[in-house]
Amino acid sequence: MRLGVCYYPEHWPESMWEDDARRMKALGISQVRIAEFAWSRMEPSPGEYDWGWLDRAVDVLGNAGLQVVMCTPTATPPKWLIDRHPDILPVGADGRVRGFGSRRHYDFSSPSYYEASQRICTAVAERYGKHPAVAYWQTDNEFGCHQTVVSYSPAAVARFREWLRARYGTIDALNRAWGTVFWSMEYRSFDEIDAPIGTVTEAHPSHRLDYRRFASDEVARYNRMQVEVIRAHSPGRPVAHNFMQLFTEFDHYKVAADLDVATWDSYPLGALEELWFAPELKARWLRTGHPDFASFNHDVYRGMSKLPFWVMEQQPGPVNWAQWNPAPLPGMVRLWSWEAFAHGAGCVSYFRWRQAPFAQEQMHAGLNTPDNRLDLGGNEATQVAADIRRVLDAHADAAGDVRAAVALVFDYEAKWLFEVQPQGADFHYPRFAFEYYSALRSLGLDVDIVPAHAPLDGYKLVVVPPLPVVPDDFADRLARCGAHVVLGPRTGSKTRDLQIPSNLPPGSLAGLLGARVWRVESLRPNVDVPVVSSHVATGAAAQPFAGVGRHWRDLIDTGTDAERDVSGVEVRATFGDGHPAWVRRGRVNYLASLFDDALTAHVIAQIAGESGLDVTAQGESVRVSRRGGLTYVFNYGEATHTIDGVDAAAFVLGSRDVEPQGVAAYRTSA
Amino acid sequence: MRLGVCYYPEHWPESMWEDDARRMKALGISQVRIAEFAWSRMEPSPGEYDWGWLDRAVDVLGNAGLQVVMCTPTATPPKWLIDRHPDILPVGADGRVRGFGSRRHYDFSSPSYYEASQRICTAVAERYGKHPAVAYWQTDNEFGCHQTVVSYSPAAVARFREWLRARYGTIDALNRAWGTVFWSMEYRSFDEIDAPIGTVTEAHPSHRLDYRRFASDEVARYNRMQVEVIRAHSPGRPVAHNFMQLFTEFDHYKVAADLDVATWDSYPLGALEELWFAPELKARWLRTGHPDFASFNHDVYRGMSKLPFWVMEQQPGPVNWAQWNPAPLPGMVRLWSWEAFAHGAGCVSYFRWRQAPFAQEQMHAGLNTPDNRLDLGGNEATQVAADIRRVLDAHADAAGDVRAAVALVFDYEAKWLFEVQPQGADFHYPRFAFEYYSALRSLGLDVDIVPAHAPLDGYKLVVVPPLPVVPDDFADRLARCGAHVVLGPRTGSKTRDLQIPSNLPPGSLAGLLGARVWRVESLRPNVDVPVVSSHVATGAAAQPFAGVGRHWRDLIDTGTDAERDVSGVEVRATFGDGHPAWVRRGRVNYLASLFDDALTAHVIAQIAGESGLDVTAQGESVRVSRRGGLTYVFNYGEATHTIDGVDAAAFVLGSRDVEPQGVAAYRTSA
Amino acid sequence: MRLGVCYYPEHWPESMWEDDARRMKALGISQVRIAEFAWSRMEPSPGEYDWGWLDRAVDVLGNAGLQVVMCTPTATPPKWLIDRHPDILPVGADGRVRGFGSRRHYDFSSPSYYEASQRICTAVAERYGKHPAVAYWQTDNEFGCHQTVVSYSPAAVARFREWLRARYGTIDALNRAWGTVFWSMEYRSFDEIDAPIGTVTEAHPSHRLDYRRFASDEVARYNRMQVEVIRAHSPGRPVAHNFMQLFTEFDHYKVAADLDVATWDSYPLGALEELWFAPELKARWLRTGHPDFASFNHDVYRGMSKLPFWVMEQQPGPVNWAQWNPAPLPGMVRLWSWEAFAHGAGCVSYFRWRQAPFAQEQMHAGLNTPDNRLDLGGNEATQVAADIRRVLDAHADAAGDVRAAVALVFDYEAKWLFEVQPQGADFHYPRFAFEYYSALRSLGLDVDIVPAHAPLDGYKLVVVPPLPVVPDDFADRLARCGAHVVLGPRTGSKTRDLQIPSNLPPGSLAGLLGARVWRVESLRPNVDVPVVSSHVATGAAAQPFAGVGRHWRDLIDTGTDAERDVSGVEVRATFGDGHPAWVRRGRVNYLASLFDDALTAHVIAQIAGESGLDVTAQGESVRVSRRGGLTYVFNYGEATHTIDGVDAAAFVLGSRDVEPQGVAAYRTSA
Repeated sequence: MRLGVCYYPEHWPESMWEDDARRMKALGISQVRIAEFAWSRMEPSPGEYDWGWLDRAVDVLGNAGLQVVMCTPTATPPKWLIDRHPDILPVGADGRVRGFGSRRHYDFSSPSYYEASQRICTAVAERYGKHPAVAYWQTDNEFGCHQTVVSYSPAAVARFREWLRARYGTIDALNRAWGTVFWSMEYRSFDEIDAPIGTVTEAHPSHRLDYRRFASDEVARYNRMQVEVIRAHSPGRPVAHNFMQLFTEFDHYKVAADLDVATWDSYPLGALEELWFAPELKARWLRTGHPDFASFNHDVYRGMSKLPFWVMEQQPGPVNWAQWNPAPLPGMVRLWSWEAFAHGAGCVSYFRWRQAPFAQEQMHAGLNTPDNRLDLGGNEATQVAADIRRVLDAHADAAGDVRAAVALVFDYEAKWLFEVQPQGADFHYPRFAFEYYSALRSLGLDVDIVPAHAPLDGYKLVVVPPLPVVPDDFADRLARCGAHVVLGPRTGSKTRDLQIPSNLPPGSLAGLLGARVWRVESLRPNVDVPVVSSHVATGAAAQPFAGVGRHWRDLIDTGTDAERDVSGVEVRATFGDGHPAWVRRGRVNYLASLFDDALTAHVIAQIAGESGLDVTAQGESVRVSRRGGLTYVFNYGEATHTIDGVDAAAFVLGSRDVEPQGVAAYRTSA
Repeated sequence: MRLGVCYYPEHWPESMWEDDARRMKALGISQVRIAEFAWSRMEPSPGEYDWGWLDRAVDVLGNAGLQVVMCTPTATPPKWLIDRHPDILPVGADGRVRGFGSRRHYDFSSPSYYEASQRICTAVAERYGKHPAVAYWQTDNEFGCHQTVVSYSPAAVARFREWLRARYGTIDALNRAWGTVFWSMEYRSFDEIDAPIGTVTEAHPSHRLDYRRFASDEVARYNRMQVEVIRAHSPGRPVAHNFMQLFTEFDHYKVAADLDVATWDSYPLGALEELWFAPELKARWLRTGHPDFASFNHDVYRGMSKLPFWVMEQQPGPVNWAQWNPAPLPGMVRLWSWEAFAHGAGCVSYFRWRQAPFAQEQMHAGLNTPDNRLDLGGNEATQVAADIRRVLDAHADAAGDVRAAVALVFDYEAKWLFEVQPQGADFHYPRFAFEYYSALRSLGLDVDIVPAHAPLDGYKLVVVPPLPVVPDDFADRLARCGAHVVLGPRTGSKTRDLQIPSNLPPGSLAGLLGARVWRVESLRPNVDVPVVSSHVATGAAAQPFAGVGRHWRDLIDTGTDAERDVSGVEVRATFGDGHPAWVRRGRVNYLASLFDDALTAHVIAQIAGESGLDVTAQGESVRVSRRGGLTYVFNYGEATHTIDGVDAAAFVLGSRDVEPQGVAAYRTSA
Repeated sequence: MRLGVCYYPEHWPESMWEDDARRMKALGISQVRIAEFAWSRMEPSPGEYDWGWLDRAVDVLGNAGLQVVMCTPTATPPKWLIDRHPDILPVGADGRVRGFGSRRHYDFSSPSYYEASQRICTAVAERYGKHPAVAYWQTDNEFGCHQTVVSYSPAAVARFREWLRARYGTIDALNRAWGTVFWSMEYRSFDEIDAPIGTVTEAHPSHRLDYRRFASDEVARYNRMQVEVIRAHSPGRPVAHNFMQLFTEFDHYKVAADLDVATWDSYPLGALEELWFAPELKARWLRTGHPDFASFNHDVYRGMSKLPFWVMEQQPGPVNWAQWNPAPLPGMVRLWSWEAFAHGAGCVSYFRWRQAPFAQEQMHAGLNTPDNRLDLGGNEATQVAADIRRVLDAHADAAGDVRAAVALVFDYEAKWLFEVQPQGADFHYPRFAFEYYSALRSLGLDVDIVPAHAPLDGYKLVVVPPLPVVPDDFADRLARCGAHVVLGPRTGSKTRDLQIPSNLPPGSLAGLLGARVWRVESLRPNVDVPVVSSHVATGAAAQPFAGVGRHWRDLIDTGTDAERDVSGVEVRATFGDGHPAWVRRGRVNYLASLFDDALTAHVIAQIAGESGLDVTAQGESVRVSRRGGLTYVFNYGEATHTIDGVDAAAFVLGSRDVEPQGVAAYRTSA
């Protein structure tokens, strides 16, 4: 539990540095990230390095007792490098080169850039790898930001062909796997294969999916090169990368596997404005962000981090990059910070120390205003530093582990596959995964977010949002782990080559579920389908329930009555036209549609209850998290929330009455 | 009245073919379309043909007693051909080449492709032209799909210049016809003329319209080449092409003139989702399609087919290509099939035999699921086959002619002209033509859809949706045919060079109508104009009526009272500000706006009554059609529809109580 | 007060010219604009001029007693010139060349075109510069129409680099001014700088703003060249250009500074449809235009014209170029004409004499229909001519000066800056400036619209819509002029290099206002913030008021109570969360948000009252203007408006009862 900040000494007169460092330390900050955009200052002209200013900056920070997170500067290659190697620039789906003048203007597949990156990373790592103030490293910055994962350059296509050759071995194998016989798309050699763009109508879906997989692998390869350079010259310093919120354009599990620390950049208000949320929700949570959004990301990145994850960049006030940029409510910077710690963060690092008065991000707040006065976010960070001391004093284990009884499977390929072949225009995987997560959180449950290949043993409940391609051993692991399971629609609906399984969906899960999806349909936004509980679901004890299915329907064949007697498949809810909406076999449940929020929560609550979990509805705007023997309560709403049944003495932060935007933490009994 | 199916032997193991053929035959299918996308299997490498598999497939089908519809494979040129002749690829309005990787990646004006097409068509026609199982041919597949009619390649521009030279003779004639003196756009030679794209503001409308006409003519020329090759090698076998639903990018009358059978591909649910219908209508008819949509197309293609038209591809379940893809209600596949027969179809051919598990259309249903079980659509096709036997047994004339007393003029150039020069952004010709047609159908009338140059003798009522350019003899033919006439707004508003007639609209119809349109206006969607009946229209007997005009107003000058006494022009309805909304002279009616649906139906009902037609309002969801002495009733609604006044013994299909999605047919008395 | 018309003799048979001229004169027209699109007729082939037709046309007009406004024809370079110099064509932000085939297909920075323009302008000016019928000149036509101010051609980039070199002197100065150290965007020479397009994410805002400034300067330079050519060959004839309605892509003050007459093209219905107005407003004012829209433009162009401004093109009926094109209500052509005169217009010139039956604008009405009958607009123009005679007879001073006590500051750079860096997606400067103007007009106030560098002495009220960059002496001039001042939000928020002022906004106005904007936020359209009056604002006499802020909030620090006691800053209204919404220091008021229309009017009324102005609410659809001792009243509504308290004898036009679409004018007492 410590605080950090992002700092750009190159933006400010050197005369300000010492005071900045002193004030950081005084505020309670312990680590400072620097230099991720400073290539043009490190190497103003080809091969002519200028380390003096950076040496002095690192010394100033170190002398103030701050730890430096040193960055490789590869997110912003300088103009002279681009002019020398124009092939560094990425190419868009429209065939146009994406030029110099902002950032991330490089192609992961460019050999020139790979080499230039290796060179500058080596230079930085050699110079600062063993500097006593340098405690951590960050590779590059926000891989993939501004749609830069996928490029369609000649270099990318050349490497894609090699990637295909490695995957398929022979062109015949590729033709079979993709099914190129359809529409005479057969290839005679790998060299005939282009990027899947610019076609008359949609390009081949397997071709498109493989291009996404390839592009993701290129990110991992590029990051791995940087990590290797750093480890060679700076042994023992953990290496991090700052991922982005709910960013899904590459497989983060693969990139994180090469890192020591997974970190992410948390901008709850910008995310709310830019993501899928309906306009009413964007107004509802305007100044707080959605109560489950930061948590979702914390749980994603905690799951893939070897050391405790960090928030590398924490929104400190209004940002500049969303369509509209409201100010957070007072208290939210503190609330977000504590929410991160409650989910297991090792560090919360604010972006940025001081708002810059120039260039693209001049309207992005910092802890200090451009006239160098402490801003509201700076005040709240100061309070967080004091909070931390108080909490650790009262409860030494507060930084302990986070343990959840619920696993939610989150998969990057699923996003790409449904984007390639949505079948319904609004089938948006991250949204549906988030809705399942939000239902769990609204029930007061802590959640681990895990990849499909993760071990599932020890969980009581495993929730699987639509997962089209399941690992070969997934059915086995689900069966063996003993957890109750919720499978979303379309799970198991595709082979890894993006074909329909020969036994129809859910493919290799058919044995587990005892059912077959014989038809599917997608539904436009102004259409939904009623869902009602069936006898089986309500039984003697349960309440009848009703709701609607949206977006999608799997029509499920559970066999005849006689077959169901043998298989044990139950229909727990049906659609208005009688088709099954929710089926169960043993501990495995399958939902045939995306239900409305209330019905989703109801169904998951029922299954969670069956799994033995303690479920408590939290209401719309209160959320709880547990860590290190403490229970945290966060109030996103407008009214004071009173915590019942907890002794006043148990509180190490706040009290039973949690003000709007307030935080409380109490020792968890037993 | 027979059934067919589309089949892709190349997609399935050869071991399945015999069983497939046997099951098709058993189901009641008599013809099988094959090979339209199989070029890469026919000619895997340049000049190396592989006919073995196709020989065997044709034999298997023929041996099972099935008739083959053999296709030319030109909709999907293989990769090696594209790599050898990149000039085959079409060019979009954005100047970008449209590449390989899906289908229809060819330019109708490419000399290379014309030659390559001639060669492969000749090869296929030579090999199968006289095979006993091959009964019909299809040229290419869905000309123009995916916006491929118009290309802006150098080859297209070169041919456009020749087309202009042939049309205008001299450049001075073109300059005069277009009016290029406006904005100094004058040309000194045909070689100075480019494609009408990429201009700073809108390109010259006459230039744009001529480019559309040219592109349409290129399709006809290309198809004609294929027909000639086929006829040379396969005499006596009718040649078809499968057109698309309400597709208007080329002049179908011109292409159909070279064919024996006009066929179309019927996907009522996909069409509803993708076309102009309001979201409420898309929800209302979600699982049935609009009750007049398939009929409209049947009537369009019946009118241009020398032999009875076919549905070459009939939707059998959910499709994959609309934004959202719902499942049809049970019964709809049967209903759609019978509706086609009622409108005169010779064959209804389902697309496709079995859902393919791979590539772009893997989510498109077939008669069988990918695991080779009969799907719902397959069951309904089986029922249709039984129905046909029953109907023909009971009423041998059932396949007789379709005769209509109403002609609706449908024109392709009108679509292009209003797209080039809408004057109001939502002036969408196909929609307005469809609304007039739908009004007629809601009144229980059968309709022939005809081109503007068609003979009109024998009709009682001729309805002309907005027809900007009328043939020179149109006024004469309307006057002589004896029918009552409904002219939509903007009729006669342009010369063939896209100029305003020197006497103002309705140009050459001015004498017939005795009125002049002195001003026009377009109206945004949230504005309409009240319309009320005038004394003349209501008279002693008629009921007063009211409604609104939308989208457009022609302001009409009918002359002074004294002039109207001479001319006989009557104002039958007026707008709220007193301008005429509906004028009549003798049997000719002119509507000055697009009225709301109810008012359109009211006005057309009144005129139809005056023409002596028997008009019966059918309600929203029931439709009737007459063919070969039978009257068919189709129920698109949710409630059972009871047919009054028909003797139970008259029914050859169904009964007086027509269930939702049900069909009935009874012998028409007298 | 005189009438004109736009005429295209080249579009019509020469046999019609004499009759046209005779009828113009008879109608009351005194000046005729010609030849602005006639280059291909003046010079049909390179260097081969054909003046005969134009000589005869000018003679015919002159002989009829009409004055000719001769135009340079550079808005439409002919095809042969483009083919010889393809570098004339502009390049879009997408990198594509914008081609021949409409108009304005030239790049202001093209050296070839500069030279060709100089040549044709010289030829026209030499031939007609001293012709007795030629009384005025127009340069080119509608500079910038169809987004043609900014081009991204190599020629433009080359000149941009020179422009930057002239502005900054050294590349270091530019790097500092822009803050290129951010994201390593530093340049080593001016030659490294490209156009600010095609970047991966947004290009540098200072780079973008400078490119806009550069492009604007290119327009001024190009116009200046034409003016100089004309003045050299046609001394004594005033030179005009026809600007467009509320067009903001170049700095009109700079271009107008080189002209004698600023004129504008008035199409109130097209503007309403195409601009920012909400759909309800587009329906509300469908056939009249917004009551303040033409006035706003009159006041803009009057302010920059040395001689009385003109309406060079007045809408005479429906136009062709908006998405929807309704017809004006009868009376509106006359009302618009008189409104122009009331605002000080020297001439109202109708566009066009006769509707052309061909080419892009064939659906644009004229004073005559294509069949050469006088159209409704022609009738109203005839009436205006008679009105003018009547008014001048009754009140010889009617054409006197327009004097306003209110100045509204309107700035072109503000538009570009907020477009480059909106911070909230709907921060649309012209809209907000118009809303302030509309509030003033709804209170019956006459308004001068002035640039930020204008002298402000003599005004009682100065209203400043959001003005991000204020001139260095702005605070001084505001303080010295003695007027009450209304400053909109974001005023003073940027330096001229597009940086945040080192003392935060309002920068150099901080001393005047005694407050500091420490934080800002933008608000999405479905969010607003309550505003209520504070004690200070209401005081003893004033009424409490309330409303909402939209789009934007400045959070203002006015200091402690003690500091306010010293500074004299008052908080007159607050937001719901207590932040100041309206602050005042002495005569200077600052509004921290864009208020709803009613609140804006209330606040401005109160300040206007404090400034000693007489304020009378006019209601939604009545507007008054004062000129030369007359008060004009215009009725945009549906009901008759009765003017109270004016003696019937005072009326020189109309009467106390102003019919819908009617005009009245009366002598202003005392």
